[in-house]
Amino acid sequence: MDNNQAALDTVFHALADPTRRAVIQRLGQGSATVSELAKPFDMALPSFMKHIGVLEASGLIGSRKTGRVRTCTLKKKRLAAAERWFEKQRALWASRYDNLDTLLESMTGDTDEN
Amino acid sequence: MDNNQAALDTVFHALADPTRRAVIQRLGQGSATVSELAKPFDMALPSFMKHIGVLEASGLIGSRKTGRVRTCTLKKKRLAAAERWFEKQRALWASRYDNLDTLLESMTGDTDEN
Repeated sequence: MDNNQAALDTVFHALADPTRRAVIQRLGQGSATVSELAKPFDMALPSFMKHIGVLEASGLIGSRKTGRVRTCTLKKKRLAAAERWFEKQRALWASRYDNLDTLLESMTGDTDEN
Repeated sequence: MDNNQAALDTVFHALADPTRRAVIQRLGQGSATVSELAKPFDMALPSFMKHIGVLEASGLIGSRKTGRVRTCTLKKKRLAAAERWFEKQRALWASRYDNLDTLLESMTGDTDEN
């Protein structure tokens, strides 16, 4: 559970940046080298590498170095784990409304807004 | 688009903390006062209020003060906007696999792993 919380912390932190989200989106189309990934951004390579580092630390991407070329790959499993957090929230709301239905059925007459 | 990116930045940043995620989860069950929200956490009130401030700045929650009591409410619309980012990624992967299917159909014989 704590591991899961820590994983969610780092994943949501990684996603809280437009450059990093764009990298994730690009890697959804397939693996790419760091130079390919950096190309669309007007950013010094060391700054860009920091973003890659944050993504890799979060487990959202992996990378492999062959000679001087580092190739990055999206880890969809980790992204799916973050998405499940949202699904869980919606499931909890739904169960709340189920309870509310039960409550309303057991009542007659007026209900206030709460 | 930039507004949307900035909104995603603040929402994902807000979600990158277990206390703030727990507050979101609690508010999914209905509105609550700050004291009610703070109760489960072993945290000084000023620290807790900072979390509430981050959540409010992200648009994930709203709050209303009546006398000395501040009541917080979840804004599900903003949470749904963040969830849609994940859905968009999956839709992009799906379209990629559609393209891959088309490519494979147009080919005969061996395909490599890429």
